[in-house]
Amino acid sequence: MDFKTIIQEVYTELLQTKGNGQPASYIPELANINPDKFGIHICSVDGNNHGLGDHQEKFSIQSIIKVISLCLAFKNEGVKIWKRVGVEPSGTPFNSLVQLEHEQGIPRNPFINAGAMVICDILLSQMNKPKEEFIEFVRLLALNSDIQYNNKIAASEKAHGYRNAALINMMKSFGNIENPIENVLDFYYDICSIEMTCQELAQTFQLFANKGCIPSTGERIITTSQSKRINAIMQLCGFYDEAGEFSFKVGLPGKSGVGGGIVAIHPGEYTVAVWSPRLNKKGNSYKGIQALEMFTTKSELSIF
Amino acid sequence: MDFKTIIQEVYTELLQTKGNGQPASYIPELANINPDKFGIHICSVDGNNHGLGDHQEKFSIQSIIKVISLCLAFKNEGVKIWKRVGVEPSGTPFNSLVQLEHEQGIPRNPFINAGAMVICDILLSQMNKPKEEFIEFVRLLALNSDIQYNNKIAASEKAHGYRNAALINMMKSFGNIENPIENVLDFYYDICSIEMTCQELAQTFQLFANKGCIPSTGERIITTSQSKRINAIMQLCGFYDEAGEFSFKVGLPGKSGVGGGIVAIHPGEYTVAVWSPRLNKKGNSYKGIQALEMFTTKSELSIF
Amino acid sequence: MDFKTIIQEVYTELLQTKGNGQPASYIPELANINPDKFGIHICSVDGNNHGLGDHQEKFSIQSIIKVISLCLAFKNEGVKIWKRVGVEPSGTPFNSLVQLEHEQGIPRNPFINAGAMVICDILLSQMNKPKEEFIEFVRLLALNSDIQYNNKIAASEKAHGYRNAALINMMKSFGNIENPIENVLDFYYDICSIEMTCQELAQTFQLFANKGCIPSTGERIITTSQSKRINAIMQLCGFYDEAGEFSFKVGLPGKSGVGGGIVAIHPGEYTVAVWSPRLNKKGNSYKGIQALEMFTTKSELSIF
Amino acid sequence: MDFKTIIQEVYTELLQTKGNGQPASYIPELANINPDKFGIHICSVDGNNHGLGDHQEKFSIQSIIKVISLCLAFKNEGVKIWKRVGVEPSGTPFNSLVQLEHEQGIPRNPFINAGAMVICDILLSQMNKPKEEFIEFVRLLALNSDIQYNNKIAASEKAHGYRNAALINMMKSFGNIENPIENVLDFYYDICSIEMTCQELAQTFQLFANKGCIPSTGERIITTSQSKRINAIMQLCGFYDEAGEFSFKVGLPGKSGVGGGIVAIHPGEYTVAVWSPRLNKKGNSYKGIQALEMFTTKSELSIF
Repeated sequence: MDFKTIIQEVYTELLQTKGNGQPASYIPELANINPDKFGIHICSVDGNNHGLGDHQEKFSIQSIIKVISLCLAFKNEGVKIWKRVGVEPSGTPFNSLVQLEHEQGIPRNPFINAGAMVICDILLSQMNKPKEEFIEFVRLLALNSDIQYNNKIAASEKAHGYRNAALINMMKSFGNIENPIENVLDFYYDICSIEMTCQELAQTFQLFANKGCIPSTGERIITTSQSKRINAIMQLCGFYDEAGEFSFKVGLPGKSGVGGGIVAIHPGEYTVAVWSPRLNKKGNSYKGIQALEMFTTKSELSIF
Repeated sequence: MDFKTIIQEVYTELLQTKGNGQPASYIPELANINPDKFGIHICSVDGNNHGLGDHQEKFSIQSIIKVISLCLAFKNEGVKIWKRVGVEPSGTPFNSLVQLEHEQGIPRNPFINAGAMVICDILLSQMNKPKEEFIEFVRLLALNSDIQYNNKIAASEKAHGYRNAALINMMKSFGNIENPIENVLDFYYDICSIEMTCQELAQTFQLFANKGCIPSTGERIITTSQSKRINAIMQLCGFYDEAGEFSFKVGLPGKSGVGGGIVAIHPGEYTVAVWSPRLNKKGNSYKGIQALEMFTTKSELSIF
Repeated sequence: MDFKTIIQEVYTELLQTKGNGQPASYIPELANINPDKFGIHICSVDGNNHGLGDHQEKFSIQSIIKVISLCLAFKNEGVKIWKRVGVEPSGTPFNSLVQLEHEQGIPRNPFINAGAMVICDILLSQMNKPKEEFIEFVRLLALNSDIQYNNKIAASEKAHGYRNAALINMMKSFGNIENPIENVLDFYYDICSIEMTCQELAQTFQLFANKGCIPSTGERIITTSQSKRINAIMQLCGFYDEAGEFSFKVGLPGKSGVGGGIVAIHPGEYTVAVWSPRLNKKGNSYKGIQALEMFTTKSELSIF
Repeated sequence: MDFKTIIQEVYTELLQTKGNGQPASYIPELANINPDKFGIHICSVDGNNHGLGDHQEKFSIQSIIKVISLCLAFKNEGVKIWKRVGVEPSGTPFNSLVQLEHEQGIPRNPFINAGAMVICDILLSQMNKPKEEFIEFVRLLALNSDIQYNNKIAASEKAHGYRNAALINMMKSFGNIENPIENVLDFYYDICSIEMTCQELAQTFQLFANKGCIPSTGERIITTSQSKRINAIMQLCGFYDEAGEFSFKVGLPGKSGVGGGIVAIHPGEYTVAVWSPRLNKKGNSYKGIQALEMFTTKSELSIF
């Protein structure tokens, strides 16, 4: 079967399935989304595209952006970044302070909130106009100038972000934050507010399926080694404390967001993005994981 | 470059490198090994074999056997086993009691000591003559009847295994051990005492590179899905709390043992086994990880 | 009001109160006790005794004995014992393994299970016939030769004591247990099985109200300083993770047991023992704590 | 011996002893204090006063003020405050976030930093002019209008108070802080900056030795029961994770501060304040604890 047929089957089967779980409810902008939105889009590295359902509707990609911020920091600073953030799975829920305290303010990996804030701090120290420069980088990867921040979402998240404020103060107390806390938090909430469609998301992640180059343009963004390493981190840390479960079921590196999006990468082959706002107990898209599990089962294209 | 050339290069380069770290010292049988032993062996799924150095000398594979015991329990019981052991990385050192206590006696994964003991308990409940039946299963995978337990090592480990006794009593208090504690511990120490050469180890793991079938005989041992899932667990949990680091550097599923052995799998391609007794601080073979990192860098054959 | 009147009032008021909570149910010997037993007995250091209700019925004093085992070890070994066990509150439930792991096998205090096992280990190393010598010491303090072990309770507790086996194996792994684990566990379960009446219990603890001497005989058992220090430990650690609550409400040093007994000491004045088998969520006698709170409120004799 | 003689002996003996430890160094205002300052002052409830050394020199009482803020909140709100803060020892270092996370934002007791911030939050909600009203309350207890905040110390502490900011954000995320975080932190640092002499400190705590009344004026501040309960909390929680050690050695309720001050209470008898800036590893005055241990040993006036 080709990808188009498989995607079609997965979509049809899941469209009829009653959705489990609820969308994220901690800010109105996410709670008010129609919970039954469902889109899927696949891009192969050889240029084929196929999408279904709400695959061209913008949604809040949230934590998925943390792969892109890691990519930019790694590109700019190289291996130095690993002095300030680890590459090990966290083993505990995504916003736990416990490990941070035990491990002297060094977050376990760049995808837990604390680690993503350290990456933001690194980017702030590198860039003159961080907000502008960052969105330009995203647009470059997406081959699309119509990618925007959602200021309302950023403001809403910040207004009740006490947990993140606790995390960053903790890291500051260990000397692992260079810039003023307010600036880092602002930038963090800005980048998490970025909106994309499934199609744009699948496109943005193409470089990770292609050893660091954007396939359609041939532009090299990061080295082969850097691309491989970011995939490895996605594999181990991309799904909060459900990374093992995802890897076990889906067998691909990927990253989820609390907005209900998931993107997965089959190196050398394709990227696939799904969106369905209902979340399971671990905060990952319920139907999104189902879709990817069905897809890799049917396509037999797992990396394992 | 072909595998043979690459292996040759890796071996030559590392042979000249002064070894870091020390062999495991907690039992005399491991402490007295010549720490500068070094062997490497690769088997491709299409039948090519190549080894160098001490690749035909037996060593104690220790925790590496936990992949095989998982394989047998999964084969016999199917998905039921996941009610008693998880698939998530542990996030803490390999013998920690903390998570076990917080998570009601369910170990995080089948490769930490507690999880491996649960798998042993499952096997004991399935088999009439566990010790005999298990070694037969290993010999079947290894295509080799000359695989043995080392009773001296088993006895030595048991004599000071207070940590493991603490772990299993803890799980028993939560009702997650069915058989008498003594029997489970005996079986656990027996299987960890098995000795293999690099060549035998690479051969034994061939089924995981070949969707659950032994390539040379075509015999199916487990399903494609089961094979893929065991690889995913190796990827996330195969290296104690250094799984992220290994995945980041090497990019392949694998498993290490405190005897200094490591086996890694490139699905669809090959298995590779390394032995070098000097361990890093996390308890993994120092030179073994270096060898695999060099090998995947040179061969550009990472799964990512 | 004199003690006799106050005790009478407390008893009458609580006798009519419907009991909350349930007796300990983990072994049949405790579960089958009539849950509405209720006795109270006070001994003043000047020789006055007064008791009511079931104050002359034997019950299982359980953890209360840990004060006496500490007393004997402290008497025999002096301050050396504090190298192997601490004097700080545990801050977590009474059988937690977490702190033991973090603090290198040194239990927080002699009243949590782990700490009491270390004290048993110390006693075993000191005595030729530990079981006989220990009960003789208890009888000496009680001025009563009719104090016995209950072998059925000891056997019953041991049969499902996996948690304690986990704890002691853990400590053994850190080198903090000298004797064979089996021997220490046997002795531990033996001493916890001792039975007393409220009257005997109040008498046995008289030395702690009298600077280390048995008031009626004048026999010095421990030094003034040792007596003061054991009281301080009771004050801070006598009630599992409810020590603060007890100290806050009752304001006296004391010790509870899972059999529903509590003994409290007003230094220089009296000892008081209560028995009521229904336990609150923290494992302390529900009505026992109420009785002591009422007693110290009415008598205005708190140490604070 | 009378108090005057005993105090004289203790002072003379310790004055000649070489001081161990170092003063707190995290802010210049504390680091620059002469580390060999040493004062002691005792007030008996029947009106006798005796002091020696630097007992009339002002120093930063720091955390000692937390007893007074608790006293005022308890006086104003009664038992309602115990819904927002516990009375159990913390069992871990004084600024740990771990327990706070596990226990849903409810600090273990009012003397750890988190608990003291909750008390500040309660006071802010009660008072119109918190800073003015609070210092008036302190002056009332001290019978002295010359008690002041030290704004320089407050500002200095706030400037690097990332740990406390982490704690309060954490509690806010659990809904246990009502007022704006900035306001609570400001008030917290203000009250911790108060300066007193040993004499003033001993006087201020007189009500706790006298069932809630100031002895010299007879003014009732809190009820007998409230006074007893505050003493019980000091006994169990007054010395960070050294409460057991202090209780064990000194046997009196008390409170220490990082400025090197300690105050202890013998209910019905006296209060005693010591100041010596060199701290032990747990953050308590090294010589202060020695002085109190000698004092209670010589006077034989322990509550136990």
